[in-house]
Amino acid sequence: MAFKDCCNDCLQCLFGYETPVQLVINNKKVGVLFRLIQVMIITYVAVYVCWIQRAYQDTDSVISSVSTKVKGNILTNSSIGGVHVWDVPEYVIPPQGESSFFVLTNMILTPGQTQSKCPEIPSEFTKCESDRDCNEGLSEVQGSGVQTGRCVQYSDTIKTCEVHAWCPLENDINIPKPALLGEAEDFTVLIKNSIQYPKFSFKKRNILRHINSTYLKTCTFNRVTDPHCPIFRLGDMVTEAGEDFSVMALKGGIIGIFIDWNCDLDFPERFCVPKYSFSRLDNKNPANNVAPGYNFRFSKYFKNNENIETRTLIKAFGIRFDVIVLGKAGKFNIVPTIVNLGATLAFLSLVNPVCDWFMLTFMKDRDQYAKHKFIHMNQNVDTVPLSSMAASSYGTP
Amino acid sequence: MAFKDCCNDCLQCLFGYETPVQLVINNKKVGVLFRLIQVMIITYVAVYVCWIQRAYQDTDSVISSVSTKVKGNILTNSSIGGVHVWDVPEYVIPPQGESSFFVLTNMILTPGQTQSKCPEIPSEFTKCESDRDCNEGLSEVQGSGVQTGRCVQYSDTIKTCEVHAWCPLENDINIPKPALLGEAEDFTVLIKNSIQYPKFSFKKRNILRHINSTYLKTCTFNRVTDPHCPIFRLGDMVTEAGEDFSVMALKGGIIGIFIDWNCDLDFPERFCVPKYSFSRLDNKNPANNVAPGYNFRFSKYFKNNENIETRTLIKAFGIRFDVIVLGKAGKFNIVPTIVNLGATLAFLSLVNPVCDWFMLTFMKDRDQYAKHKFIHMNQNVDTVPLSSMAASSYGTP
Amino acid sequence: MAFKDCCNDCLQCLFGYETPVQLVINNKKVGVLFRLIQVMIITYVAVYVCWIQRAYQDTDSVISSVSTKVKGNILTNSSIGGVHVWDVPEYVIPPQGESSFFVLTNMILTPGQTQSKCPEIPSEFTKCESDRDCNEGLSEVQGSGVQTGRCVQYSDTIKTCEVHAWCPLENDINIPKPALLGEAEDFTVLIKNSIQYPKFSFKKRNILRHINSTYLKTCTFNRVTDPHCPIFRLGDMVTEAGEDFSVMALKGGIIGIFIDWNCDLDFPERFCVPKYSFSRLDNKNPANNVAPGYNFRFSKYFKNNENIETRTLIKAFGIRFDVIVLGKAGKFNIVPTIVNLGATLAFLSLVNPVCDWFMLTFMKDRDQYAKHKFIHMNQNVDTVPLSSMAASSYGTP
Repeated sequence: MAFKDCCNDCLQCLFGYETPVQLVINNKKVGVLFRLIQVMIITYVAVYVCWIQRAYQDTDSVISSVSTKVKGNILTNSSIGGVHVWDVPEYVIPPQGESSFFVLTNMILTPGQTQSKCPEIPSEFTKCESDRDCNEGLSEVQGSGVQTGRCVQYSDTIKTCEVHAWCPLENDINIPKPALLGEAEDFTVLIKNSIQYPKFSFKKRNILRHINSTYLKTCTFNRVTDPHCPIFRLGDMVTEAGEDFSVMALKGGIIGIFIDWNCDLDFPERFCVPKYSFSRLDNKNPANNVAPGYNFRFSKYFKNNENIETRTLIKAFGIRFDVIVLGKAGKFNIVPTIVNLGATLAFLSLVNPVCDWFMLTFMKDRDQYAKHKFIHMNQNVDTVPLSSMAASSYGTP
Repeated sequence: MAFKDCCNDCLQCLFGYETPVQLVINNKKVGVLFRLIQVMIITYVAVYVCWIQRAYQDTDSVISSVSTKVKGNILTNSSIGGVHVWDVPEYVIPPQGESSFFVLTNMILTPGQTQSKCPEIPSEFTKCESDRDCNEGLSEVQGSGVQTGRCVQYSDTIKTCEVHAWCPLENDINIPKPALLGEAEDFTVLIKNSIQYPKFSFKKRNILRHINSTYLKTCTFNRVTDPHCPIFRLGDMVTEAGEDFSVMALKGGIIGIFIDWNCDLDFPERFCVPKYSFSRLDNKNPANNVAPGYNFRFSKYFKNNENIETRTLIKAFGIRFDVIVLGKAGKFNIVPTIVNLGATLAFLSLVNPVCDWFMLTFMKDRDQYAKHKFIHMNQNVDTVPLSSMAASSYGTP
Repeated sequence: MAFKDCCNDCLQCLFGYETPVQLVINNKKVGVLFRLIQVMIITYVAVYVCWIQRAYQDTDSVISSVSTKVKGNILTNSSIGGVHVWDVPEYVIPPQGESSFFVLTNMILTPGQTQSKCPEIPSEFTKCESDRDCNEGLSEVQGSGVQTGRCVQYSDTIKTCEVHAWCPLENDINIPKPALLGEAEDFTVLIKNSIQYPKFSFKKRNILRHINSTYLKTCTFNRVTDPHCPIFRLGDMVTEAGEDFSVMALKGGIIGIFIDWNCDLDFPERFCVPKYSFSRLDNKNPANNVAPGYNFRFSKYFKNNENIETRTLIKAFGIRFDVIVLGKAGKFNIVPTIVNLGATLAFLSLVNPVCDWFMLTFMKDRDQYAKHKFIHMNQNVDTVPLSSMAASSYGTP
């Protein structure tokens, strides 16, 4: 018996369906307001969250591998170097075609350096009257060697501290102008880029399926006519970056080659194509800058007939191209969808309180509404509750 | 007095607890439906969101540093080079063991090049009948130098344009086959990788704690027997990438070494171990490709006894290994948890409307339910409150 | 007529405003509990989600480009090398100043190597009694060449297998101590770093606007006095990483230079400044490690008077500096805001059930409350609706 009751209670609390009692008010003002807010929220979700922000998508960021290959030759005729043809192994550093490659455009050559002693290049730090002005073993950060402590003639008029160094010292005061390899703007670079989005096991290359090898042998990238050709003319890239190649070639700089792989993978794979853009990455403005441009020194080592090591020092100015691959892929996923929809639904539950407040504050019949909306019940509860007379109506409990 | 009232009102609205009046319907159908939907939603959250998607976790992506060290020697006996032993400093480029390293497997050697003039290698662009076919100063992108404007004998039968260049020119028509350093597949590479997840200040290395130095001296990576040995045999990696080393060695290519550090940091640190995988990154299919494989040219510079600069040009074919470190770590965080739970709770609030709709549409007693659920109140509201007037309005049917 | 009705119904269901009927209970206990939970949730959102976690922000991760330039000279006087001045092109590898650069601090020099045959360096693998112990063509991974199959005198007492190799072989048993270029700690490196957050089209450089070129020529990074000077003393960085330069210089290692660009872009751009930090990335502990420190071999190639290729092999120990740019930028965005607020609002909707449960379980008047809160309605529904008999209970006020 008792068990049966208990059992009933259980079932009741399990399957007894509770639904809030609603007060329906036929009042245009509130009704309109109510619907209006609802519509607004739903529109926001549909348009902004789903359509524009694609908040229903799970995202992954790109993994990429890049290889580059520069092509081109230049004939130069300089005082020191004489007639010289520059080919890729000479002007591309490092040679192995990584995602960041440097193209030599200008340089200062100092051949025949050997380990010995020679006077410093004159500067505020290195000029001297007597040995007293030079300290043996001192190595100026700005200097080009370690001082011997002697003060010697640099020229008829100038004396400078003597240094242990690779002599003769490089004198980089005047940079060749125009740039020695200014014609480098006609060089082309082939960029091979293969990317993947591991989370969606999506792989693709910047050499698209519809591109055939014959086309690749001849094409050059052009934003309008050949937007998918992976072969770029250096000059074009620098121009698109808003720079003047001949100027940049003098002191060098860094150009970023951005390959943008932003893709909506809910669309067919063929719509996922790279977008190329170019911009200068280093700070050319000399105001708050030191050593503007981009240069570095490297050397070729030889042994002369006396088997003494000599070297040719090259101060290389040029343009470093950094291939930077960006990308975020989005694909429908249930979790972000649920989260975003859910979160906005939560706002729908706010509409009622808002409208109630409006109704109970601004409507002339507010007292009536209040009376009907709220059933007051005080501590000293009366014994005749709502339900008891409900009892009278519905059979006995 | 008035103040006291006001004060009461305040307290009342502050501590007067409002709770919706609920209509309880003992109807199995609706009740079951109601519970069913609730259970579904809650299960979804528990299983999918929390368990599978780990949506309760905050995530961070990996920061990593890699260094590599290749080991191995090869004896070759070629026509040009003669007997030659290749050791690491010769065939690994660049030598300093970065995350991306190139292993030389095949090459075309052109020793004794000097700056001079010589006929071009015959090709559609370079063949000529007379000087008229050659333009002085022209530098073919496909060519190997700058034309002098003269048309000279390349062989008894063929005439080609003369070029300023590093002569003799490299002739890369026929690539050594089999690959000169085909045995490179027996080389091993030690990969040291240290990662961190800054957000969780978590650091780890791919040389795990339980690995001791004696083991490291002898082990080789094997997915089954030695999955945590950081020393890899080149051949094994290429095989796992689904390629044939001897084939790949001919023209080179790019292999990605993926180190996957996906970790659930709610588990103890020891469960966070790297997973290694390998795949080919470049496009070997020659159909929509140019210069398949991977090669580059570099040169060694010498001075001959007349102190003239000569060089040995090496067209290097080989395999570039890119060590790519992936990883996302997750750790419990209250914000995503709240967001995901909350968002799903919002759906629970949808259950009622749905069931109401079901109840008021499909149940036979729908009118009764409606009558009890909704209390109608019209614009022309009278002063008698809800109940009584409701009575008069509906009266008995 | 029927149409008119239908039309009315439509309007009614469109603009008829439904609001739940609320039971108001003036009970301090429940009231307080109710407000308390509400306040807690709201506080959580305000303080934690919004203020601390900045969950109202959309985030983007950093894109960066780095160039480095080392400065300094050292005079060494070693047995083999003699007096030698080391300048940047010699001790910085690779020279082109990329984000990861290596500074030579110690080395083992093996000049005059040529392709020939010589006895192996004695070791457990290479020692032999007779030719039988050596296999022609065998190339030990640990060895330095390819065995000829002969067993020859290494010294008066020791016999080792003969190898084809670059002879004389390098003997790297004893490393110079103290480090040859230990003074490298006084070298300085200029780091230029330009970053961007594409999503917010935000660009910045680590050379800040207020820094002028004169300051840059003289300053050195100091966490306290010069926190924004982009010129770093190698010694300082190693010290900040908690290492001893003189010790590290012996066998080398890897130092991470972290540039942290975490920015709240809701604040003015000037507040977005890089934070520098340094830490050792490789594993110095020899216990579970192989080849601790950081070293690699490279060589300079020469031709002697007989035009035979010789080389100087250099085993380079030194410190590799990896510039690692971190950064996440946040900016207000409506979607995450909505999602986070919404999600938490969903919790507010939980407060009522909780309080109801509390009220209906622990309050002494719980039966009364229950009676008023729930209107029971059974399957066998009678025709008299709620309202009418509600009338009988609450008469007119």
